[in-house]
Amino acid sequence: MKLNTEELKEKIVNEEIKFYEVEGYVDGDINKATVLRRKALEKMTGASLETIGNYSFDMAQTAMRNIENPIGAAQIPIGVAGPLKVKGDYADGKYYLPLCTTEGALVASVNRGASIITDSGGAKSKIFRSLMVRAPVMKVPDAEHAVKLVEWVEEHFEEVKAAFKGDEPFVWLHDFQWWILGRNVFLRFRADSADAMGMNMITKGSEKACNFISENLPWAKLVATSGNMCVDKKPSAVNYLLGRGKTVQGETILKRDFINKTLKTTPEGMVEIVYRKIYLGTGQAAAYGLNSHVANIIAAIFLATGQDAAQVVESSMGIVTAEILDDGDLYFSLTLPSLEIGTFGGGTGLPTQRESLSIMGCAGFYKDKPPGTMAKKFAEIVAAAALAGEISLCAALSAGHLTTAHERLGRGITT
Amino acid sequence: MKLNTEELKEKIVNEEIKFYEVEGYVDGDINKATVLRRKALEKMTGASLETIGNYSFDMAQTAMRNIENPIGAAQIPIGVAGPLKVKGDYADGKYYLPLCTTEGALVASVNRGASIITDSGGAKSKIFRSLMVRAPVMKVPDAEHAVKLVEWVEEHFEEVKAAFKGDEPFVWLHDFQWWILGRNVFLRFRADSADAMGMNMITKGSEKACNFISENLPWAKLVATSGNMCVDKKPSAVNYLLGRGKTVQGETILKRDFINKTLKTTPEGMVEIVYRKIYLGTGQAAAYGLNSHVANIIAAIFLATGQDAAQVVESSMGIVTAEILDDGDLYFSLTLPSLEIGTFGGGTGLPTQRESLSIMGCAGFYKDKPPGTMAKKFAEIVAAAALAGEISLCAALSAGHLTTAHERLGRGITT
Amino acid sequence: MKLNTEELKEKIVNEEIKFYEVEGYVDGDINKATVLRRKALEKMTGASLETIGNYSFDMAQTAMRNIENPIGAAQIPIGVAGPLKVKGDYADGKYYLPLCTTEGALVASVNRGASIITDSGGAKSKIFRSLMVRAPVMKVPDAEHAVKLVEWVEEHFEEVKAAFKGDEPFVWLHDFQWWILGRNVFLRFRADSADAMGMNMITKGSEKACNFISENLPWAKLVATSGNMCVDKKPSAVNYLLGRGKTVQGETILKRDFINKTLKTTPEGMVEIVYRKIYLGTGQAAAYGLNSHVANIIAAIFLATGQDAAQVVESSMGIVTAEILDDGDLYFSLTLPSLEIGTFGGGTGLPTQRESLSIMGCAGFYKDKPPGTMAKKFAEIVAAAALAGEISLCAALSAGHLTTAHERLGRGITT
Amino acid sequence: MKLNTEELKEKIVNEEIKFYEVEGYVDGDINKATVLRRKALEKMTGASLETIGNYSFDMAQTAMRNIENPIGAAQIPIGVAGPLKVKGDYADGKYYLPLCTTEGALVASVNRGASIITDSGGAKSKIFRSLMVRAPVMKVPDAEHAVKLVEWVEEHFEEVKAAFKGDEPFVWLHDFQWWILGRNVFLRFRADSADAMGMNMITKGSEKACNFISENLPWAKLVATSGNMCVDKKPSAVNYLLGRGKTVQGETILKRDFINKTLKTTPEGMVEIVYRKIYLGTGQAAAYGLNSHVANIIAAIFLATGQDAAQVVESSMGIVTAEILDDGDLYFSLTLPSLEIGTFGGGTGLPTQRESLSIMGCAGFYKDKPPGTMAKKFAEIVAAAALAGEISLCAALSAGHLTTAHERLGRGITT
Repeated sequence: MKLNTEELKEKIVNEEIKFYEVEGYVDGDINKATVLRRKALEKMTGASLETIGNYSFDMAQTAMRNIENPIGAAQIPIGVAGPLKVKGDYADGKYYLPLCTTEGALVASVNRGASIITDSGGAKSKIFRSLMVRAPVMKVPDAEHAVKLVEWVEEHFEEVKAAFKGDEPFVWLHDFQWWILGRNVFLRFRADSADAMGMNMITKGSEKACNFISENLPWAKLVATSGNMCVDKKPSAVNYLLGRGKTVQGETILKRDFINKTLKTTPEGMVEIVYRKIYLGTGQAAAYGLNSHVANIIAAIFLATGQDAAQVVESSMGIVTAEILDDGDLYFSLTLPSLEIGTFGGGTGLPTQRESLSIMGCAGFYKDKPPGTMAKKFAEIVAAAALAGEISLCAALSAGHLTTAHERLGRGITT
Repeated sequence: MKLNTEELKEKIVNEEIKFYEVEGYVDGDINKATVLRRKALEKMTGASLETIGNYSFDMAQTAMRNIENPIGAAQIPIGVAGPLKVKGDYADGKYYLPLCTTEGALVASVNRGASIITDSGGAKSKIFRSLMVRAPVMKVPDAEHAVKLVEWVEEHFEEVKAAFKGDEPFVWLHDFQWWILGRNVFLRFRADSADAMGMNMITKGSEKACNFISENLPWAKLVATSGNMCVDKKPSAVNYLLGRGKTVQGETILKRDFINKTLKTTPEGMVEIVYRKIYLGTGQAAAYGLNSHVANIIAAIFLATGQDAAQVVESSMGIVTAEILDDGDLYFSLTLPSLEIGTFGGGTGLPTQRESLSIMGCAGFYKDKPPGTMAKKFAEIVAAAALAGEISLCAALSAGHLTTAHERLGRGITT
Repeated sequence: MKLNTEELKEKIVNEEIKFYEVEGYVDGDINKATVLRRKALEKMTGASLETIGNYSFDMAQTAMRNIENPIGAAQIPIGVAGPLKVKGDYADGKYYLPLCTTEGALVASVNRGASIITDSGGAKSKIFRSLMVRAPVMKVPDAEHAVKLVEWVEEHFEEVKAAFKGDEPFVWLHDFQWWILGRNVFLRFRADSADAMGMNMITKGSEKACNFISENLPWAKLVATSGNMCVDKKPSAVNYLLGRGKTVQGETILKRDFINKTLKTTPEGMVEIVYRKIYLGTGQAAAYGLNSHVANIIAAIFLATGQDAAQVVESSMGIVTAEILDDGDLYFSLTLPSLEIGTFGGGTGLPTQRESLSIMGCAGFYKDKPPGTMAKKFAEIVAAAALAGEISLCAALSAGHLTTAHERLGRGITT
Repeated sequence: MKLNTEELKEKIVNEEIKFYEVEGYVDGDINKATVLRRKALEKMTGASLETIGNYSFDMAQTAMRNIENPIGAAQIPIGVAGPLKVKGDYADGKYYLPLCTTEGALVASVNRGASIITDSGGAKSKIFRSLMVRAPVMKVPDAEHAVKLVEWVEEHFEEVKAAFKGDEPFVWLHDFQWWILGRNVFLRFRADSADAMGMNMITKGSEKACNFISENLPWAKLVATSGNMCVDKKPSAVNYLLGRGKTVQGETILKRDFINKTLKTTPEGMVEIVYRKIYLGTGQAAAYGLNSHVANIIAAIFLATGQDAAQVVESSMGIVTAEILDDGDLYFSLTLPSLEIGTFGGGTGLPTQRESLSIMGCAGFYKDKPPGTMAKKFAEIVAAAALAGEISLCAALSAGHLTTAHERLGRGITT
């Protein structure tokens, strides 16, 4: 039975056709289904969804990878900060930062930090580790078997690597870490996923590796491909300590003069903020991370560039250091142990997201450079951007004009 | 000197005009400045920013509150899950959930959880606490003065409340918690901010309260309006334990039959996943939260509805319980200690965001009900939605068809 | 059948008589049973237990309260450090510190810290909170009942207090904190236990309070008198943040001159150690506490004075602050959030332990002062002693002579 | 000037002779000095120190290694629990457990757990890791140099190992872990220290290694031999996750029948306690460790056997698992990630302590087995003992007779 659009809409409204069934009634036409769902939803809820229906990407293609039951898109403003001079092993130059946020004063704050960093000669960025992680949990009879499993994987690691890789071209298992609790073995696989954040590839690889293990050790049973020691999208000591994705540091030396003139404060004043607010306050709060508002910058860049917004959770854990050098200038650094990003795959291919990456010269991958080079460049820029945010906020607090600035702008950064 | 558009663009490209100065050259016309910045940025970086320039909200109004140096907007797909039956003290009915994400399979997963919950009679939601928090740090001479400060605030609390409130109509200081470390006093002010998330109002209130304290106790000096014991946008034990924003729980009883038929697993199988993955895995990882992927749902709803994306960090800390009842059905709950949301203010007023809130009947505030009622309704729906996500993923892992499902959809939920 | 000593011993050796049954064969004579067990154990294991058999307390009395299946006693050396000048609300004078340890250099280290503190005018000690805690967990049908339970306890708090107290003369319930997770309610009862550490009294009180609740709310069932949110003898954020026992701070101002002359270092050097080792190192380690070796001093005093050695775990969490004052002197403080001690009850009544308390004038309780005064005095001294240990070690590291000192003494403090 | 005893005492009382100077006045006679100090202290404080003066070890020898300013010894009762059947790779047999404590009911509790474990066939113990750790912090100019330092140590690791070892016969550097924060490099050296706990040897080795590094990389400066990422005597995620000392697990399968008859409860009841109290309660408390009272057993064995009492802090972090097997029996395990113990060195050589070790056949080292064998045997016994304590307490709570038992004994275990 062929239904016309209005009839279809009515059936959706009456829940005779479920949202996920709509495509089936319109010959798989995703765009048509998107409109139908939106129209039905308007009727069901009384909400107008006009602006959600206004978007400029191809929903048909998007719905293959990024969304189900689409009805349209959210629009979130993007502002630009910079230029920010970054000197890393992969990024080298002045970069403009697309920041997608609805929090007033944030772009202005990063901009101010970028300005003084750039004036002082730029931020240096350095990647310490770059491996994505998935940790399945397997069940075994007892501790003796648990140890056997670990030893077996160590002894057959080349085979496990091959099983993990399968025919996936851009993933390579690097090593694994392990924990045993009772009859449970957690294998924390660490892999290189080139320019992709890589979670899907590595999840599949982990499952293939565990299946290979079970085939050889039939008493070992895969319980869950994620055993929560990965640990994805939960704030945890394991990632804070061992890293996940990129472990990267941004650092800079700010001239005392610039701090006085541009930031209207002193190196001593900024060190005091770091001491009282960041070390004592965050320390007593038992937070993962010693920083003031890294998450603001991480979230803003993640949204602009199509990263996984839920991974802001662990990507924003960061540790600040601040110390006055012998010549009176201020050394300031920010270390991000667990920055999970990619320049390819996931949401990075959507139009506005890809454009945002292009602003930094970070879209996709380099054809003439080793896999992973683009993502590393991006990580270095992100670390420097978050550093700019930290410096700006610490300076503002130190200068005591935080609220004043907010009031002028009619709003404030929350930290 | 009046410059034409092309000349202005050139000057921006050459960094003679800074991004934040552009409005000054176009008579404060924000829309014109937005175009200029975008065009200049295209030239500076070689990036095409065509889709970023495609948006349907009024940038002039937006830039007053939500962004600086705007160049346009990101578009992120929204899918819809549901209906989800929720029975709370504020929400009561079937709700459709707008989920803004680029992670394939997420909407489908929540949809599946919503379906079985609704079939089993719905989720109950309950708010345990509802107070937003800001914790300034003040410096005093020593412990004796620190104790005096705390006692003084206790004794003069009505006056402190008045100072905190000022003439802000929708904020009320409720109480405060305190910590002393050396010469530092952290006052953790807890306030009701009605239907707004409230961070800005409460930051201003905190500063006014501290100024009032300093006026009376001149030896007490405000160091930072946020002393990082709030603690905003950092994962921390303090919010995990004491809450921030809403502390809310969703719970449901799933029929054994439905678990068998719809989820293709058993209550025992789901309890095992919770035990091995969530309690042991997350426990050993030293995570704040015992759950599998709450952050996915929180992030997706936050982006759709204009919440602060950086607050996904603490809002997604959640604790799952799962237990088999005497009659063999499965009790499942999710507690969110620190859900920071609003239905008014911040990014909630942007068009697509407001439309998303409208889908759930949660935009703005009730004119005929007590302040805060709308935000509480929204919190109850969010808790039930995150519960749906947890149930779906635990079931999928238990049924062992997680990867299979992903492969069918060509992607996967990361957890 | 009456057995002679040798026959009895043989039967114990052959496991025909269990260790705990021995008293039954010797007319309840605990001293005789102690000897018998020891002799039998010597035969069973081939170990000589001569020195364990050498003790000077009355085992018969001890075994009523402090031990089962006794075989004798351990002897652990006590050294004395001090005098340490302490100015608190309860302690005021110069105190000698009995430190029971087998770690060489520890007494010398505390002694050095005590010396410079005393020379600089003494340490000030201040108690911020003083309440012992027990947190039972109760099971209820759902969240709605959970909230009802909490509200009921709030409404009937005077009755709950009375039930908690029973006829115990020296315990008073002060208030309670609560958490709900699924169908579980954790009630964290906080009580004053005068000069006793108080765990037993408060455990009994908690059980009585819960029974009273269950009688009135029959759907609420006590699961465990300790629901692990107390949390006893586990390092936890809850005690780190909310305290347990005494929350107490020691602080002092060290003269720059003395730091130079006595400690052979500078205020700047000591601040650097605090910054790099304590804030950054412990911060990245995700430790509860920002200090260097508080546990050494806490353990040594606990063993000397008959405190519960397992409570060193949470009693030793401490936060150091160090800052240079305008006049160049060094302010140094140590805050102990969760110091669990008593001067009465538990192991404090054993002879050597009571003597150790007497050295500080802290044995038992004051007959002419409010209950709890003695324990508070003791807490102030302990905080000052731990402060002395921190200062000494930070200074030693700063002066770079830590290993040298160890080598001279042929050993070292571990930190 | 030669002073007689009475004159000397007077001068000590008047603080003309400091405590640490006394030996200098009595020809270095430590025993004489001990008496003098004690007598002087009696006079100074009015305390009688008679029992502290009663001890049976040689203070002269002790004061060379374990104490300064000695005045005597504490006596703490020892009870014996067991036999406990242990099957490990190093321990194999029935063991009696010397428990040194002043907490009534503790020995009885462990005894009960040991009894049911032994009746059920014994506990299996397994060591997963065995390496002691020290983590110095070094200061370098910037991140680039920090990475260079790490790479240099990796490249020259054989030389660093040799420097670390020096001429110490029983210590071998195994590997190192590293973290960079700003300009600081934390090197976490992991070493085998045979049968000694090893902290002193490894501290010396770490300093030698760092000096060797500085000689080759003059821009790298050792700040502190302990940079608090070791992390000694502070509860921390780093040891919870990465271990320190022994990582060891005890496990057992308890027969359902025995649980019914001996423990008066059911496997289901015990699993419920683990679920509600240990997973939910400790989980919400954000504790390091998921257990009920491991610290009680660890502390009691540590005191009896001369371990470092301050290391109870991290040695007692433990994770329990409990699950019902297909045949209805109960699998129960306890994993201790960071058990820091030795059978040689430190306080283990004191007479009563050595006797306690002898009870378990664990004193000193094996002459005919590889170094470290004795300490590993001891670790296996300790893990099984702590497992017995966990089982006993969970059973008691489940059976609801915890308080009753306490009341009968006039006291209680605190947990």
